[in-house]
Formats: sequence, C-alpha cells, structure tokens
Amino acid sequence: MCELLGMNANVPTDIVFSFTGLMQRGGRTGPHRDGWGIAFYEGRGLRLFQDPAASSESEVARLVQRYPIKSETVIGHIRQANVGRICLANTHPFVRELWGRNWCFAHNGQLADFQPQPGFYRPVGDTDSEAAFCALLNQVRQAFPEPVDVNTLLPVLTAACAAFSRQGVFNCLLSDGDWLFAFCSSKLAFITRRAPFGAAQLKDAELTVDFQAETTPTDVVSVIATEALTSNEPWTLFAPGEWRLWRAGECLAVGQAGS
Amino acid sequence: MCELLGMNANVPTDIVFSFTGLMQRGGRTGPHRDGWGIAFYEGRGLRLFQDPAASSESEVARLVQRYPIKSETVIGHIRQANVGRICLANTHPFVRELWGRNWCFAHNGQLADFQPQPGFYRPVGDTDSEAAFCALLNQVRQAFPEPVDVNTLLPVLTAACAAFSRQGVFNCLLSDGDWLFAFCSSKLAFITRRAPFGAAQLKDAELTVDFQAETTPTDVVSVIATEALTSNEPWTLFAPGEWRLWRAGECLAVGQAGS
Repeated sequence: MCELLGMNANVPTDIVFSFTGLMQRGGRTGPHRDGWGIAFYEGRGLRLFQDPAASSESEVARLVQRYPIKSETVIGHIRQANVGRICLANTHPFVRELWGRNWCFAHNGQLADFQPQPGFYRPVGDTDSEAAFCALLNQVRQAFPEPVDVNTLLPVLTAACAAFSRQGVFNCLLSDGDWLFAFCSSKLAFITRRAPFGAAQLKDAELTVDFQAETTPTDVVSVIATEALTSNEPWTLFAPGEWRLWRAGECLAVGQAGS
Repeated sequence: MCELLGMNANVPTDIVFSFTGLMQRGGRTGPHRDGWGIAFYEGRGLRLFQDPAASSESEVARLVQRYPIKSETVIGHIRQANVGRICLANTHPFVRELWGRNWCFAHNGQLADFQPQPGFYRPVGDTDSEAAFCALLNQVRQAFPEPVDVNTLLPVLTAACAAFSRQGVFNCLLSDGDWLFAFCSSKLAFITRRAPFGAAQLKDAELTVDFQAETTPTDVVSVIATEALTSNEPWTLFAPGEWRLWRAGECLAVGQAGS
C-alpha cells in the first residue's frame, strides 16, 4: 500500500506542514520506502518533484521541505512497490495533458491482472496505477473529445473509478488544476480547515503549527490523506465507494458509487 | 532570444558544469531573466526542474546546482520572453507522452502569427514554442499512429522543423529519452568530448573542471548550446537549416533542410 496526500485551497497555501508528516512515513514511521512524489499546480503550470528513494532519506524531499511552494492544488504520494520495479518512471504522481490542461493522478492500491486496451495515452512505466490513469483519460477523451465542465465529466470519472475498484483496491486523487477529485475504494480521510484556525499537531513528527499565524480569516484549506495526519483535529473518513470533488477549498459534490 | 542547452552521453553524466555556465546568462552575463528549466532523463522517467524566476536568482536553480543528477540526456533552457507572459506554464522545456515515452522539447526563437490547427496535443500555456511542439507531435502521430524507429521518423521531424523555420526563428532540441535531435535555424553550436579529456574553462563563471578526473576513457559526451559555453575548446557551429541526431553521445545522423 501507498500513502496519498491531496490539498485544495482558495488561496495559494504552503503544503510543507502536511508534507513533513507524510514524508516521515516513507521509511521512518511507515514502510513506504520505494519512492515519493509531489505535484504543485501554479496557475495552469505544474511543478513535479519525485524521487525513487525513500522520502525520509531523499535529498529532493529535503529540498521541497526547505523551499516552501505555495499552491492551490497539490497531489502527493509515497510508494511501497507492489507492481512495477522501483524507478522514476514508476513513481507517482503521473501527469498527462488533456484539453490543454495538466492532469495529475496518484493511486493507492493495486489492480489484479489489469490489462487495458491500448489507447492514445500509454503508460511510460510498468505500474498498474499509470495504466489505470491512461485508461481513465482514454475513456474521458472518447466520451468528450472537446472540453466539458466538471459536472458533465463526473459521471464518466465516477463510473471509471467504480469499475477499477471492482478489480482491486483503488483509492485515488485526480486534478486538472481547477478541481481536485478523490475516490475511496477502501481508505481515505479528509479535513477542511477554516477560521477560527487553531494549532495542529502532526502525528508523525515532533511538529506543531499554529494555523492562525499562517492564514487569513477567509482561507479555506482541505487536506485529503490515506490516514489522518494530525492527532488533535477531527478528520472525516470516506466510506468505501465514496467520492468527493473540491474546488477553492470547498467540497462541491459528494457521491457514492455502486459497488 | 533564449538559450538552449542539450547533453547526450553514453554513460549517466553530471551536467552541473555546463548548467553553471548557462544559468549565469539568466540575468547575470546575459539578459534571459524570464525563467529557466532543465529536464533530465532517468531511464524512461524524466525529472523536470523549472522556475519562472531568473536562473541567476532562482532557489530551484541553486538546488539543481547543489544536487548533481546524472543523466544520459538533458535538455535545458533559459528564457527571455517574447511571446507569452512569464509564468510556469510558459517555461521550457515542455513535455508530452507519445507512444508511451516522455518527449521533451525546448525552443529558441519565435514564430510570427503561428496558428496551428487544434489537434490531440494542445498547449497548456500561451507560447508559440509550446504550440509548435504540440503541432510537431500531432504531425508525428498523424504520420505514425504506432511507434517507428528514429530513422523512419527523421524525415517527418526535419520537414516539420524546416516548415517552422520558414515562419520565423526555430532552433530547437527534442528528445524521447533514447535520442537527442537538434535543429538549427539561426544559431546553435556543439562539442563532443571523449578521451583524452582535458580541463575546460567556463566562459561565464570563474570555474574550471578537469574532465580527466571526472570521466573514464570510454565516456563520450556531446553538449549542444546556443553559444559555446567554454573558452578553450573547439565548438562546432551549426549551419542554418542543419539538423543533427545523437544517441549515446555520438552523432548518428546530420543533414540540411531545404530552406
């Protein structure tokens, strides 16, 4: 299994606090030693930092911790390999361009004997995760050759994710930089932080941040993770089959896929 | 105008020496203050570091300098904006997946009134460079829906580059991670280093590297740049319309496009 981290906010927000908690699980408080990656949207552009090395020992991870990057949408992942060898091409998150936007995807779980039809988007590495991402984008493009809004898109996304989850474990995060979509097949949690902000205590490292000092009263920041990252805040668990869509920090839509 | 940097080698090679020279031109010895980017292939994977800030002042550039990444193929770029505002989405190099490989592209020059047909690949930002890259990939995919070897591909690549160069200035670097292709419309130079290696003196910074201490006798490393980066080595200038293809450090093919 791997660990996912997503963030969606209404103002460019510093993810360093959550990333510090997550990266401890990469070989220190957790077994996910087989790489990590984190993608930050900056307008329509996307910054991607990745390393096949364990995040708790990664030089690039230390760089990301030292250099705070503010972003409205972030997708991160630390990996414990089960399908595909340990190399950069097999490291999440994965990125493709669709409709002139950068789509970014990370997956927790595994799909047994996943053999999608070859389509336009093809995996570069050999993980089931990247193959599923390509299959998902191929389905979206087949349904909608030209851009549609996310409400029109949602039935295609949720049906594809539900179908993947019937073939194994499929918790995922997906974004086009405008919205953040999360699908839970087995395990995912989230929290939405807004004023009045308090202090948050990380579960995995000796670190507390006082959000009130870091934020303004109108900030809304949602964080999605495989497990709660803090010990003193009320995280909400997803039900199996549940999906959610965020934009500007707020949950816009929630639903339950047929299992 | 912008500055290009390419490297192709037969062993994973450290680009830090050439990058140090190039990044001085980003705001220090040159006027290219509008961002920079560098992409390193690692197997089929690709690491991309970019910043819309001037490279001589960029925190991410300092990170890249401190953290030597060895790669067989590298494409770098520093930008002086002429088309498209200064933002991450407009920062070279650009990347797309084609045939299950990461294709990477950087461009020096500008194309007047470039309005390609919308195709499968679409620009995320608003530069003529990314639009040309997308148009190039759309032409490749239209000619060859399934993968072909680079010798079969070359006539399509060179014809597309020649057509672009008739619309403006089009010096470019392109790679799929296996080979590195360079097209010169106005200005490009290269050098191939092999044993016996000597010391190289950077033109832009007080820095000398003794390649003999850093290399083995079988290493072959070609470096391509807008202008010679060293003052004591024999760089070869491209002729206008000339293209070259490298693999494993060696020039495999060279030709002249009709102008």
